[in-house]
Amino acid sequence: MLSLCKRRGFLWPAYDIYGGVGGLYDYGPLGAALKANIENHWRKLYVAGEGFQEISCPIVAPEPVFKASGHLDAFSDMFVECTSCGETYRGDHLAKGLHDNPATLSEAQLGKLLADNGVKCEKCKGELTSPRRFNLMFKTSVGAGKGKVAYLRPETAQGMFVNFSQIYRHAREKLPVGAVQIGRAFRNEISPRQGLIRLREFNQMEAELFIHPDDKRWPRFKHVKNEKLPLVPNSGKPQTMPLGEAVEKGVIVNEVLAYFVWLTYKFALDVGLDPARLRFRQHERTEMAHYASDCWDLEAEIGYGWTELVGVADRGSYDVQAHIDHSSADLTAFERFDEPKEVEQEVVKVKFDALGPLFKGKAKAVGDALGKIPPGAAKGKKELNVEVDGQKITVPATCFEVIRRKEKLSGRKIVPHVIEPSYGVDRILYALLDHAYTKKEDHVTLRLKGLVAPVKVGVFPLMAKDGLDEIALEIFESLSAAGFAAHYDDSGSIGRRYARMDEIGSPCCVTVDYDTKTDGTVTIRDRDSSEQVRIKRENVQKAVEALLSGSALKSLDKRS
Amino acid sequence: MLSLCKRRGFLWPAYDIYGGVGGLYDYGPLGAALKANIENHWRKLYVAGEGFQEISCPIVAPEPVFKASGHLDAFSDMFVECTSCGETYRGDHLAKGLHDNPATLSEAQLGKLLADNGVKCEKCKGELTSPRRFNLMFKTSVGAGKGKVAYLRPETAQGMFVNFSQIYRHAREKLPVGAVQIGRAFRNEISPRQGLIRLREFNQMEAELFIHPDDKRWPRFKHVKNEKLPLVPNSGKPQTMPLGEAVEKGVIVNEVLAYFVWLTYKFALDVGLDPARLRFRQHERTEMAHYASDCWDLEAEIGYGWTELVGVADRGSYDVQAHIDHSSADLTAFERFDEPKEVEQEVVKVKFDALGPLFKGKAKAVGDALGKIPPGAAKGKKELNVEVDGQKITVPATCFEVIRRKEKLSGRKIVPHVIEPSYGVDRILYALLDHAYTKKEDHVTLRLKGLVAPVKVGVFPLMAKDGLDEIALEIFESLSAAGFAAHYDDSGSIGRRYARMDEIGSPCCVTVDYDTKTDGTVTIRDRDSSEQVRIKRENVQKAVEALLSGSALKSLDKRS
Repeated sequence: MLSLCKRRGFLWPAYDIYGGVGGLYDYGPLGAALKANIENHWRKLYVAGEGFQEISCPIVAPEPVFKASGHLDAFSDMFVECTSCGETYRGDHLAKGLHDNPATLSEAQLGKLLADNGVKCEKCKGELTSPRRFNLMFKTSVGAGKGKVAYLRPETAQGMFVNFSQIYRHAREKLPVGAVQIGRAFRNEISPRQGLIRLREFNQMEAELFIHPDDKRWPRFKHVKNEKLPLVPNSGKPQTMPLGEAVEKGVIVNEVLAYFVWLTYKFALDVGLDPARLRFRQHERTEMAHYASDCWDLEAEIGYGWTELVGVADRGSYDVQAHIDHSSADLTAFERFDEPKEVEQEVVKVKFDALGPLFKGKAKAVGDALGKIPPGAAKGKKELNVEVDGQKITVPATCFEVIRRKEKLSGRKIVPHVIEPSYGVDRILYALLDHAYTKKEDHVTLRLKGLVAPVKVGVFPLMAKDGLDEIALEIFESLSAAGFAAHYDDSGSIGRRYARMDEIGSPCCVTVDYDTKTDGTVTIRDRDSSEQVRIKRENVQKAVEALLSGSALKSLDKRS
Repeated sequence: MLSLCKRRGFLWPAYDIYGGVGGLYDYGPLGAALKANIENHWRKLYVAGEGFQEISCPIVAPEPVFKASGHLDAFSDMFVECTSCGETYRGDHLAKGLHDNPATLSEAQLGKLLADNGVKCEKCKGELTSPRRFNLMFKTSVGAGKGKVAYLRPETAQGMFVNFSQIYRHAREKLPVGAVQIGRAFRNEISPRQGLIRLREFNQMEAELFIHPDDKRWPRFKHVKNEKLPLVPNSGKPQTMPLGEAVEKGVIVNEVLAYFVWLTYKFALDVGLDPARLRFRQHERTEMAHYASDCWDLEAEIGYGWTELVGVADRGSYDVQAHIDHSSADLTAFERFDEPKEVEQEVVKVKFDALGPLFKGKAKAVGDALGKIPPGAAKGKKELNVEVDGQKITVPATCFEVIRRKEKLSGRKIVPHVIEPSYGVDRILYALLDHAYTKKEDHVTLRLKGLVAPVKVGVFPLMAKDGLDEIALEIFESLSAAGFAAHYDDSGSIGRRYARMDEIGSPCCVTVDYDTKTDGTVTIRDRDSSEQVRIKRENVQKAVEALLSGSALKSLDKRS
C-alpha cells in the first residue's frame, strides 16, 4: 500500500533527494486533499455542529508553558545507543518479550534487564550504552544573543489551556465553552519505524471543552443514549453497549464524556472507517494519568494491529490548574449564585494610618496593590512586595493584617474541568487508506467514501478526437466549476483509465463516446460495483452527487 | 485597532500569561476564520482556477536543504547587544538616518558607523557590542544522541523545489506544472516590533510554477493584457499601465510573470484590499537576487507605511539547479523533440576486455556502473569509484575512456525555470483589517467584504421573549445549516448589538420583532450604509447571499 501511496501522490518520504529523515513525510496532491477533507468534516462536526471556537496558536512556545504542563519533566522515552555503529534504539522496544511492561522500568532496571539478557545492537551486534531518558520535545531558542529556550509544541492542546481566559471572555463568560485547534505537533522520536503511525511531525485535531466541575450532564446526550458502541472496558468483558446503559452502570464516567465518545464514533463512520475494525478501549487504571477520571481510545485494526486514532479523556482541572499555579494568572470562570450568599472569609485589611506616613503620596496606590494580594499569600508574612508604577515597594507588616470578615458574595471563582477529544489526523488518514484498500487479482481499488475521496469524479472521452474530447472537457469544466474535484484523462485505454481512477479512490467516472453525439447520453460508472449505466448528459452533476453520498448506481433513474 | 483585535477575538498576544514572546500571536476565533477565508479564496484561484497541485511538507528540515538553498550562508541579520542590560537590536535599524542603506554594510563598517555616531542602548544608554551576523533560522536537532542538525523552514518554497520530480511525475511529466503550499514558516527575528508585519512564526501561501526555460509565453495572458495595474518600475516613473504594454515595453520581463502579477492583483481586490492603497513595486536591480530576472512586490499602504504583502518573481533555474548541485538528484524535465536529432556527444566507453580479468564475476556490474557516470566526471581521471552491491570499487583508467559518439536523441533534459508568487497571509490579513477599519465618532466599523468576513450575519430577536427568540433561533439555525457563519445575540439593546456586529465586520444583521409574528417579515440591515429594509422571512437566505456578494440593500425586492 505504501508503494501505491508514493506512486499515486498520496505520500512521499520527505527530503528523499537528501537521503530522507525518519518520521517525516510529505503529503502529495492526493494526500493533502484527503487530509483536508478529513479536517473539514471534523471542523463541520465540532465548530458548526457543536459550537466550538476554532483558534490557531504558534508552534514555537517558551519553556514555562511546558514546565507547567509537565512535558519538560515527563515527556520522555528511554534511549540506548550502539557504542560501535551509533544506531539509536528505544530502550523499551529492545526489552519487548523480556518484561510485561518495560515502559514502567527505571533507567537502572531497564539497563540491568538488557544486560542480563545480553541484548546487543540489532544492526552490528555492538555493545549498547546504558539507558538514558531523552526528552521528546524539539528544542530551539528564540531571539539573538543568549536567546530564550523554547520548544516545538508536542500537542496543540496547551494553546487552548493558556488562552482559557480569552476563550471564556469571547463566549461572554459562560460555561461550557469549547475551543479547537487543527495543526502540526512534534515529537522527536528516538527511532520512528512505523510510517504514518509514528511521525516526528504530525497533525492533530484537538478539542478542549471547559465545563463546570460539578455538572457533567450534557443536554444533547439524550439524543444518542440508545446508540450502541463497541466498548472494551478496563474491567469486565468487551461488549457492544448502549451509551445510556454505559453511563448508568459507570462504565463510562459521565454523560459529557460519553457524548464525545459517540461524536468520535460518528466521525469515524462518516469518513468511512470500517465499523468491524473499530473499538473504544478504556485506559487501564495504571495507564491513565493520575488526574484523569476516565479515558477512552478509539482504536482501529490496521496492518500494524489495533492502533489508537483518537483519545477522549476527562482530564479534570489538571491542565488549567497547572497553568494557574505556574503563571499566577486567574484562569477561572465565575459562577454567579442564584442569590447572593453571606460567607465569612479572610481578606487583607490595609492599615492606611500606618501606610500614610511611610509612603506619603503613594500610600493610596500601595494600599490598592496590597488589597489585591490573596489572603493566603499575606498571612503571617513580615513584609510584602508590591509594584507601583513599575517600582518595587516593600511594605512592612505594620501596614496590613489578614482578618476574617463576613461578606455578601454574588458568586464564586471555579477552575473548569476539561473534556479533551484528541484526534491524530495522520493515523486516521492511514487507517482510512488501510480499510479502503482492496485487491482483486492485480486490480487495486481504494474504496474511499465520497466525503473524503481526493478526486470525486474522472471524466474521459472514449477517444481524444472527433469532438468527444471537447464534450468531455465541457463536462469536466462544469463539474469543476460546481466545486467537484474532477480529473480529466484522455490517454490510454478506457480500462486503464478506470483502473487508475480505482487506484486513487475516485467514486465514479463519466465517459463520453460516439453515442453521446447522437443521443446526448454519457456512461457513468460506479467504482465499487464496476457497473455502468447511461444517463443524460445534463443529469451528470445530480448523478455524481447521488453516487458521492452513497446511492447505488441502479437507483439512478436512467430514463431521466 | 490592535486593541479592537484583541478585545473582539481576532488576535491575542501569544503566551500572555507567561509574559508573552515577541513576534508570536494567536489567532482567536474571528482571526482564525478570517485567515481561513483568505486562504480558501487563494486556494480557489490557484488550485481550482489555475490547476496548481497543493502539497504539504514538514516544517522541520535537515541542514543540507538550506545549505543548497543558500539560507544557511545568507539568511542573516546584523545584531548588537547592550553590554549592560542585554537588550538586543538589529544593527541596521540602529543605523537608520546615519547611512542610506545600512543593510549593505559589513560587520566592521556598521560597527564603525555606530561607534563614530556614539550610538548607545535605547533602553539604558549602555555600551553596545560590535555587530555580529545572526542566522535567522530556528535551529533544532532530530533524533536522540548526537542527533542531526535541522531547522524550521524559513519559507514553504523549498518543500516544492526538493519534490520537483514527484510533482512533475504526478503531472505525467509535462511542463508547465505548478505546486502550492499553505503553511507556517519561521524567522527568528532579532527584535520584532511591528505586530503582524514582522512575526517570528508566520503563514505563507506560496506557488511555484515550473516552466520551460525558453518559453515564457502564457496562453491565458491574452485575457488580461488590457487590464491596467498601478506599477512602480525600477526605472521610469510610476504609472497605471495595461499589462500587454508593460510586457511589450519590457517593463515586466515576460508574459507568465505579468499574468501572475495580474492574478495577485485580482486576489487583492477579491478579498477587499483598497485599490487606492495598492501598488506593484519592481525590485531595484541592486535589491534583486542575482539569479532573478524580474521581481514585483504587491505593496499596500497601511499604518506602517507602504508594506510588502506579496512577491512575484522569475527566479530562473536557480532553486532547482541548487538542489541538483547539492543532492546529485536528477531534478530535470525531459523535452521530447518533434523528431529525433542526431548529435555528437561525449560518452563513457567501458573497456570490457580490461575489466574482465580485473573484476571477474563482477565485471558486468562494474561496467554498468561506469556507464552511468557523467562523461564530464570521468574525463581525464586516473581512476573512478563505483559502488556495486554496496561495496566501493576503484576502477583504473585502463578500463574506460571518454569518447565522442554520434547518437540519435529523442529529446533532452532541461532544468525548469521557476515563477514564484509568494504571499504573506498575516500581512494580508493585517492590511485587510487596516483598510477595513473606519471610525465615525466612537462607532467603529470593519468594512470587510462578504467573502472574507468571519461572521456573515447577525441574527437578533428584538426581545428575548414572546416567541421572538424562538423565531430568531430558527432563522439562525437555518442560516447555519446552509453554511453561513451566523451569530445569534439576544442581550443588550439592538443598537448595542448592531455596534458589536459592525465592530467585527459582519456585513448584515437580521432582526425579528413583533411585526414578524403578524406579517412574517424581518428587518435586514446593511453594515456599511446602516440602512434597513423589511423582507419576508422566507427570503432571508437569498437576501443575505445578495448582500454578501456586494449587492446594495436597496436592490433587494422588498415586496418579495
